[in-house]
Amino acid sequence: MSAPAHLLSAIDPLSVEAIDGSSYPDEFKAPVAGRSKRRLGDALGLKNFGVNLSTIKPGSCSALRHWHTRQDEFVYILSGELVLVTDDGEQALCPGMVAGFPAGKADGHHLINRGNIDAVYLEVGDRTAGDEVDYPDEDLAARITPQGRRFMHKDGTLY
Amino acid sequence: MSAPAHLLSAIDPLSVEAIDGSSYPDEFKAPVAGRSKRRLGDALGLKNFGVNLSTIKPGSCSALRHWHTRQDEFVYILSGELVLVTDDGEQALCPGMVAGFPAGKADGHHLINRGNIDAVYLEVGDRTAGDEVDYPDEDLAARITPQGRRFMHKDGTLY
Repeated sequence: MSAPAHLLSAIDPLSVEAIDGSSYPDEFKAPVAGRSKRRLGDALGLKNFGVNLSTIKPGSCSALRHWHTRQDEFVYILSGELVLVTDDGEQALCPGMVAGFPAGKADGHHLINRGNIDAVYLEVGDRTAGDEVDYPDEDLAARITPQGRRFMHKDGTLY
Repeated sequence: MSAPAHLLSAIDPLSVEAIDGSSYPDEFKAPVAGRSKRRLGDALGLKNFGVNLSTIKPGSCSALRHWHTRQDEFVYILSGELVLVTDDGEQALCPGMVAGFPAGKADGHHLINRGNIDAVYLEVGDRTAGDEVDYPDEDLAARITPQGRRFMHKDGTLY
């Protein structure tokens, strides 16, 4: 959906376009091929944080396991079931459960749909400047460069 | 709930203490006496934005009608029905609907429960510094002072 000329205060989330897949380098796209996000915060004109209504198909993940240096993240499970993976292990999250990932906590997280129905959740993340992202399981990092935040190998070589 | 020594990444929201009422000056407390908030973001260790699981009893309101100068707000309706009031009028919000209130948009909003069951919603607001709050229907404003943000009359006299 392009931004409406007159932003409405309240909307039906399903009126917002669903965007599939990720901006990861090609070799990392497969695990998140079954994810789809509706950018509700953008559609409502919010700037300080993003809110997505996200759907994860069976067998797919929310993201590569990662953590942010400066931005907080929050999720609320709406339907289906997702397995949260962190350094502490795995935890099944059913509808109504919430999780939070404070900025700078060096513990990668992601959500995996190991069920046989779509899982839907709400995710919130702020837009604090200078944020970088670490991916502990992959040769991947998102670092600030003069051209903006870019994906690179852990040795600093750009993808 | 006091903050746990070891913050868990995922929690059941109902494990977080519900805080009733408001910090408004006494003469403004009645319309929000039936509101209750569980501070999920705080319980999860988030700092950049707050997330509350809020319950509004029949006849009560989410807040006095207001808008923020620097902070965005977002709500997701989980159960019951709430009537959104803005300068544009009224709109009934059922479960699954979302609303957003961009920082600096001079259009007061609040949610009223005109139904006969509790209404439950998720609310998110960031913590951008220097935020002030305007209450168009009341002789009330929240303004930054050397002692922090304080409630005052529109002529600047403190409550």
